Amino acid sequence: MTRFICAYNEDEVKSYLSTIRADIDSILVSYAQFDNDCPERLASAMRYSLLAPGKRFRPTLATLALELCGGSREKIAPVAVALEATHTYSLIHDDLPCMDDDDLRRGRPTCHRQFDEATAVLAGDALQAWAFDLLSSRIEDEAIAARCVKELARAIGPSGMVGGQMDDIISSNGSCPHVACFDSDRTLDTDPTASSYDLLAKIHRRKTGALILCSLKIGALLGGASTTVLSTLCEYGRLLGQAFQIGDDLLDAVGEQANLGKRVQKDNEHGKLTYVSLFGVDKTRALLASISEQIKDALSDVAQVFDVQGCAFKAAYYMADYVVRRDR
Amino acid sequence: MTRFICAYNEDEVKSYLSTIRADIDSILVSYAQFDNDCPERLASAMRYSLLAPGKRFRPTLATLALELCGGSREKIAPVAVALEATHTYSLIHDDLPCMDDDDLRRGRPTCHRQFDEATAVLAGDALQAWAFDLLSSRIEDEAIAARCVKELARAIGPSGMVGGQMDDIISSNGSCPHVACFDSDRTLDTDPTASSYDLLAKIHRRKTGALILCSLKIGALLGGASTTVLSTLCEYGRLLGQAFQIGDDLLDAVGEQANLGKRVQKDNEHGKLTYVSLFGVDKTRALLASISEQIKDALSDVAQVFDVQGCAFKAAYYMADYVVRRDR
Repeated sequence: MTRFICAYNEDEVKSYLSTIRADIDSILVSYAQFDNDCPERLASAMRYSLLAPGKRFRPTLATLALELCGGSREKIAPVAVALEATHTYSLIHDDLPCMDDDDLRRGRPTCHRQFDEATAVLAGDALQAWAFDLLSSRIEDEAIAARCVKELARAIGPSGMVGGQMDDIISSNGSCPHVACFDSDRTLDTDPTASSYDLLAKIHRRKTGALILCSLKIGALLGGASTTVLSTLCEYGRLLGQAFQIGDDLLDAVGEQANLGKRVQKDNEHGKLTYVSLFGVDKTRALLASISEQIKDALSDVAQVFDVQGCAFKAAYYMADYVVRRDR
Repeated sequence: MTRFICAYNEDEVKSYLSTIRADIDSILVSYAQFDNDCPERLASAMRYSLLAPGKRFRPTLATLALELCGGSREKIAPVAVALEATHTYSLIHDDLPCMDDDDLRRGRPTCHRQFDEATAVLAGDALQAWAFDLLSSRIEDEAIAARCVKELARAIGPSGMVGGQMDDIISSNGSCPHVACFDSDRTLDTDPTASSYDLLAKIHRRKTGALILCSLKIGALLGGASTTVLSTLCEYGRLLGQAFQIGDDLLDAVGEQANLGKRVQKDNEHGKLTYVSLFGVDKTRALLASISEQIKDALSDVAQVFDVQGCAFKAAYYMADYVVRRDR
């Protein structure tokens, strides 16, 4: 089969993605209202972190998947908020002193610096619960609601995002003072061997990849995707998640703090296992470029299923280039 | 209407409750298995806290509600685990150094003392996600699954359990070093006035009451309860939750650490607003006794709906006496 090349117009795609992001931003503001039973301090902390400027990457992917499958955008609201709330909760907890101990996030003081540790832990906890509240109460079709809850819960649970974060901390290989003891079979080989690569890929498949994949899946489920479409989107999402993480590692190594809104060079300081620590910058860039091609292949394989002239398909295709080029 | 008096046999009820607890304990062990994507350290921490000896009060209430409504007990398994996992997550996070800073829980070192803070935060996060996974994937009827997720998410979210914990920390009135600044309208009056009582009741309605009420609701939903039955069980659950918290305050003031498996007298040390700090021990006991009578009234009002000769009804009635008498 000939490979399908999507000749998108970059300005057109960016403008389409801007409308999605603007929609998501206004949805976030309108949803982030809590009743009188929610303490003002807690609501402030949740809003502070949730509404901080962000790429809104996960809700954007969900919207793309929904529109790729022919669904109409207004359906995405509760899902978009649930995904961004979940991502925000994970950032708040990852930034805590006992985890990555970061002071800066999205260009602002981290939640525990702006408020305090107790409030940050609780804001994260509340955002997680709120995400499941939204999925279960704001999606009309109960069968789809239950399925979305299951997908999200599994993506971020012990064998998903949280498991990835646990192994990521352990992979700091003792330099993190808060993990005093290690299971002996989890001690890492920091040589750039196949086994370290496998472990690294496994960490990120769960830590960042699972929620990215889940965002696409949930969008597709809302759009009424068939099992076939769902599984092809999964391959796309799996590769995109991997590319996104490799990009994060590169940006930590060579990016600008001013663009990123968070501290850079911290992986190296923490002695973390990353794509850059394993392969160096140049080989990591090459790996990213190769995965970008695989993303295009994955879309090419299913081009006949979708409206390849539609903005959603072009934007999905553009993502393969975006993950290579992004600077934040 | 004459008040219905349930002449239960205490040994019979205790034996019935023992079978429920034994069932729950074995269900917990069989469910707490995680696949290879879950790091061993994370699985150990989750199991350590989840399987520590406990009253299993919330899963027991769910089982009672299910059996009161004529449902069969095997349906309760995923719900029982989800409720206990949720409760366990809240204990792990409440015990953290930035919150109540406790070293002892259920007679063992707290999770962050046994492992470390990062692992404890993650174990709590993972238990929360896992609870929603179980409700959404192991309840056959998708409409009931979505409803159970909604009930749990709301009970433990920003206007529920987490909100209550936030206000509880703030109610320490500055003695908690981790909450450095207060919203001025949240500064508390520690005089035993109606307004302090209202705030205290509001804290506990959310912090402990919401999950207790939710346990009864979810059990009843699984048992196919009608709207009427559900609302009467809600009144019972609301009162039971309040009584349970008043009992907790009393036990902190006058209980034995050896029975409780956690440190006592800490509310007083922390300058916390509690029923005992507001009313003293004797008046708090009197308040508890009066709520116990209200619980019996609530059951009496609906006695004709249930099989009052059945173990579930007798056990529900017995709870009104148990909350007064319990020593742990």
